Amino acid sequence: MSFRVHIRVMPRRGLLDPQGQAVERALGALQFAGASNVHVGKAIELDVAAQDEASARAAARAMCDKLLANPVTEDFEIAVEPK
Amino acid sequence: MSFRVHIRVMPRRGLLDPQGQAVERALGALQFAGASNVHVGKAIELDVAAQDEASARAAARAMCDKLLANPVTEDFEIAVEPK
Repeated sequence: MSFRVHIRVMPRRGLLDPQGQAVERALGALQFAGASNVHVGKAIELDVAAQDEASARAAARAMCDKLLANPVTEDFEIAVEPK
Repeated sequence: MSFRVHIRVMPRRGLLDPQGQAVERALGALQFAGASNVHVGKAIELDVAAQDEASARAAARAMCDKLLANPVTEDFEIAVEPK
């Protein structure tokens, strides 16, 4: 079976997020006064061929651990849906 | 009220996604054979102060139109949740 996997990789809470700060300042300059606490990370989508949803999730977690996320500075979330 | 807004900005389907291709090749090199159709975009999280969920969503859409997404090359999705 094939699953569509959505991964969100965000800077870890409490660590510096210069891109988020830059976006927050830019939003303020554009008069979006209501925006705060902005964080910017990576969104990754991919198809994973696996026997079941748990296997697809485990494969995605391994991909994050080995390549997609920095284990020291980033956290990730994985969502799996059938295709 | 304040809402937590999650925005996902992805390269538009059919347009070149060199970052996605690079990740797909790297996953292949790491023996993740089951991964395909990889796309990489931006994940943005922010707090939006608004009267209700519809207003928060409208504000987020305006932010995407004006700053966060490139209207020619990217598509975006918005999810709003109460804080």
